[in-house]
Amino acid sequence: MSRTISGERFRERFDRFNEIGATERGGVNRPTLSEENARARDTLVEWFEEAGLEVRIDEIGNVFGRRSGRNDDLPPVLLGSHVDSQYNGGRYDGVIGVLGGLEVVETLNAAGVETERPIEVVSWTNEEGVRFQPDMLGSGVFAGKFDLEFAYSLEDKEGNTFGEELERIGYRGEEPCEPRDLHCYLELHVEQGPTLEDRDLAVGVVEGVYGFVWFDAAFTGSADHAGPTPMHLRNDALVATGDVIESVRRIAGTGGDDLVGTVGSLDVDPNSINVIPERVEFTVDFRSYDDAVVDRAADRVREEIDHAASREGIEAEHEVIMRIDSQSFDDDVVEAVADAADALDADATRLVSGAGHDASYLNRVCPTGMVFVPSVGGVSHTEDEFTEWDDVVTGANVLLNAAVEKANERADGE
Amino acid sequence: MSRTISGERFRERFDRFNEIGATERGGVNRPTLSEENARARDTLVEWFEEAGLEVRIDEIGNVFGRRSGRNDDLPPVLLGSHVDSQYNGGRYDGVIGVLGGLEVVETLNAAGVETERPIEVVSWTNEEGVRFQPDMLGSGVFAGKFDLEFAYSLEDKEGNTFGEELERIGYRGEEPCEPRDLHCYLELHVEQGPTLEDRDLAVGVVEGVYGFVWFDAAFTGSADHAGPTPMHLRNDALVATGDVIESVRRIAGTGGDDLVGTVGSLDVDPNSINVIPERVEFTVDFRSYDDAVVDRAADRVREEIDHAASREGIEAEHEVIMRIDSQSFDDDVVEAVADAADALDADATRLVSGAGHDASYLNRVCPTGMVFVPSVGGVSHTEDEFTEWDDVVTGANVLLNAAVEKANERADGE
Repeated sequence: MSRTISGERFRERFDRFNEIGATERGGVNRPTLSEENARARDTLVEWFEEAGLEVRIDEIGNVFGRRSGRNDDLPPVLLGSHVDSQYNGGRYDGVIGVLGGLEVVETLNAAGVETERPIEVVSWTNEEGVRFQPDMLGSGVFAGKFDLEFAYSLEDKEGNTFGEELERIGYRGEEPCEPRDLHCYLELHVEQGPTLEDRDLAVGVVEGVYGFVWFDAAFTGSADHAGPTPMHLRNDALVATGDVIESVRRIAGTGGDDLVGTVGSLDVDPNSINVIPERVEFTVDFRSYDDAVVDRAADRVREEIDHAASREGIEAEHEVIMRIDSQSFDDDVVEAVADAADALDADATRLVSGAGHDASYLNRVCPTGMVFVPSVGGVSHTEDEFTEWDDVVTGANVLLNAAVEKANERADGE
Repeated sequence: MSRTISGERFRERFDRFNEIGATERGGVNRPTLSEENARARDTLVEWFEEAGLEVRIDEIGNVFGRRSGRNDDLPPVLLGSHVDSQYNGGRYDGVIGVLGGLEVVETLNAAGVETERPIEVVSWTNEEGVRFQPDMLGSGVFAGKFDLEFAYSLEDKEGNTFGEELERIGYRGEEPCEPRDLHCYLELHVEQGPTLEDRDLAVGVVEGVYGFVWFDAAFTGSADHAGPTPMHLRNDALVATGDVIESVRRIAGTGGDDLVGTVGSLDVDPNSINVIPERVEFTVDFRSYDDAVVDRAADRVREEIDHAASREGIEAEHEVIMRIDSQSFDDDVVEAVADAADALDADATRLVSGAGHDASYLNRVCPTGMVFVPSVGGVSHTEDEFTEWDDVVTGANVLLNAAVEKANERADGE
């Protein structure tokens, strides 16, 4: 029989936590290593300790809280997410995964349940990457993707280094930040897309994360006067870009079922009503769960960019600035999440995450899975971010039951 | 037989004049009512007086220099252009029309020729409109298009008013700035387009100026995450804009022989590589010599904008912010320019100006014509602006002979 968390206790914690850095329009402003982020961390540490968790801070500031298991030498089940936010971001993104992990612990405490393995709850440092890039930094260093010294040397726009700021807020811990033996990692998170809401579902059983490719691209033509320059003597960088915008939509429509493509950023120079655009810089983002689909889309858009330039008689540049392979989560962990959703009779579907998460890096360290709850309107990263509380509770219940199942797995796999 | 100017004297004046506000990269920086613009005006007044011209400054700062005719009561022939520049603009734009007028006077002086009518040379205030908008302000007030008080009240980005700045540089004159009886107006100017160079010609006999329409337009969709948002649940403002960019090219290609269309300015919000564009603001510019063609293009692009919005499921806005009718220059003045070019055996063609000029407003006051010389590469408004000096001289010779013909027309039209 499934266990259930206390929706009220969870909600009370959620609301109190989101008073930290609360914005007038109902969001939160807790960018990483800010004063508000420090206060959020302090609150978390206090609550972890109140719940009987043993708190450890690692060298990048990841905060761990540990609940012992019957067999405390076994690798633990790790639950978590992040509590840093976008500038004026939403209240759910990250927070429900960390406080959800704490709620799992509280539920087990209240019921006097001991698990075979220890359970740890983690809050990863700098998932959002708004103040220091790259994003998912704390989990990335933990997974060995980035060096610690690289992370310390990162600078924000004011020239403050990540290392100094981490020290300043008192969260440069002693525990080595490196891969260690974990039984599995589970993360509860908002979907940040519209699929669950569109299909009227409460829970997404996440099977993996899309691979993606990012391009920086540019066209350079001639900045001639929009009046006296006949159409046949133009070299218009924006007309070529218009072709690429259309191509990206066409490639996304024909390149694979799950392929998505976006031109998200575009800057025109000189950007004047009566001057033909001389230079346009723009980006292209393609994502799919199938890395071959991503690579084919990348090849096709390169051809399209070159062709658009040749058609318009202008110069083209394009460069891949990021290429991350898709991540397939562990079958057993995914199954545990799906079973938990089934047992709870939750309206659930299996899906793949289009956005990156700390879980993407943890998947390199240990068997990993995620639980999604709906983002109303597919909206995230803004103060308008919203999830029905009933859905958050359902997601936390799935997390609870999957975590307990995994935490009761014995060393011999029984 | 045709008269000819002194190419050397003209060149020497041109080079000395362009020392004022000269930039390192070979252009000039003399935005209207700046210190450099004041020094350019002072030099012009000095040279006008040295050439025996009677100088008058009007209320908007237009500078007139008058050479008497045999019959000084007859309306004068007016020659001119402007000496203000774009920020870091070119050396030819405007300057050759004003110094070209002065060179006409010097040539007549040197030859001891008296004309039937007076000849006046004018330098119009604020043709470029880079510091104070709208452009072509001095000629616009002169032609009754704008009120003097409106012009005085204009502010630059620092909040200085046009009236105060005009007073400060000492060019707020006493002569009323209003339409008066002129026999005709002739302006020598660079083409600012590629047609003459493309056809290897030295001179353009300008028959008129294109009409044009300017739109401000915008699409508003949803700023969703570029990863987890499937293609069929997107409302992408930039995809719709891509459709419009292509439509503008198609409308220009099919809407009329001389129709040109441009999307010159485009701003994306939030303009981030992994966020679907929520809002795009952009402009559309259509021009043709045929106002019905301009109006049809405007109707078609309105339909295309609305259709692109409906296809993408987003909101559209569009507003005409400027609509200026085409100007047809006076047949007799155009004929005088064409005859002068013929008599000089100049490689010339008739054409219509795609860009606006002071002559566009003067055409409302008196019979008007223009002489174009090539812009190498079609380039203007930058320090790279260039015209072969031989072509400038040919253009000035056409101006001279057309001016003399018109200035010798008697009151009875003989």
